[in-house]
Amino acid sequence: MIKLIALFKKPQELESFDQHYDAVHLPLVRNLPGIRQLEVTRVVGAPIGESKFHVMAELSFDNKDSLDAALASPEGKALAKDLLHFAANVVTVFYGETVE
Amino acid sequence: MIKLIALFKKPQELESFDQHYDAVHLPLVRNLPGIRQLEVTRVVGAPIGESKFHVMAELSFDNKDSLDAALASPEGKALAKDLLHFAANVVTVFYGETVE
Repeated sequence: MIKLIALFKKPQELESFDQHYDAVHLPLVRNLPGIRQLEVTRVVGAPIGESKFHVMAELSFDNKDSLDAALASPEGKALAKDLLHFAANVVTVFYGETVE
Repeated sequence: MIKLIALFKKPQELESFDQHYDAVHLPLVRNLPGIRQLEVTRVVGAPIGESKFHVMAELSFDNKDSLDAALASPEGKALAKDLLHFAANVVTVFYGETVE
């Protein structure tokens, strides 16, 4: 299993960001071919002060080939286009393997 | 359920970091009272270039009170002390609620 992790910093316009994320972006994520699991975590705080992060999405795939195929698909391209449209300045994307 | 997420950037000394993380830090994490689940994800790449992140740990608790109690316990204090000792300059900690 491999995970694509998209970590979003707090955007300037919280309300319109959340609205777009829930109504437009997440449906595109759920629509990815080969996605095995989706976990969305809303950031609610930090040990001291406020976190700079807002939300994190973890998308699980069987392996790297399956992840690459998903991103190269029409659904993946639509997802990437939308991401750059509404979150280019707040998102960081990385890949991870769960070891425990 | 609430999660404490500890996200580590790539440290300068990868090998000694990993050794300490696996042999000393993770046992302290597993030892926290009330911890329901621990997921450790090693960062293996990014869509373009290398990720600045190295590893992420997600610690699940029943609720915020249980998380606060864990951090205030002797085991939590030992964990925090170790974290600041070996990873103060690379770690970010935040709390999240999984909504999907």
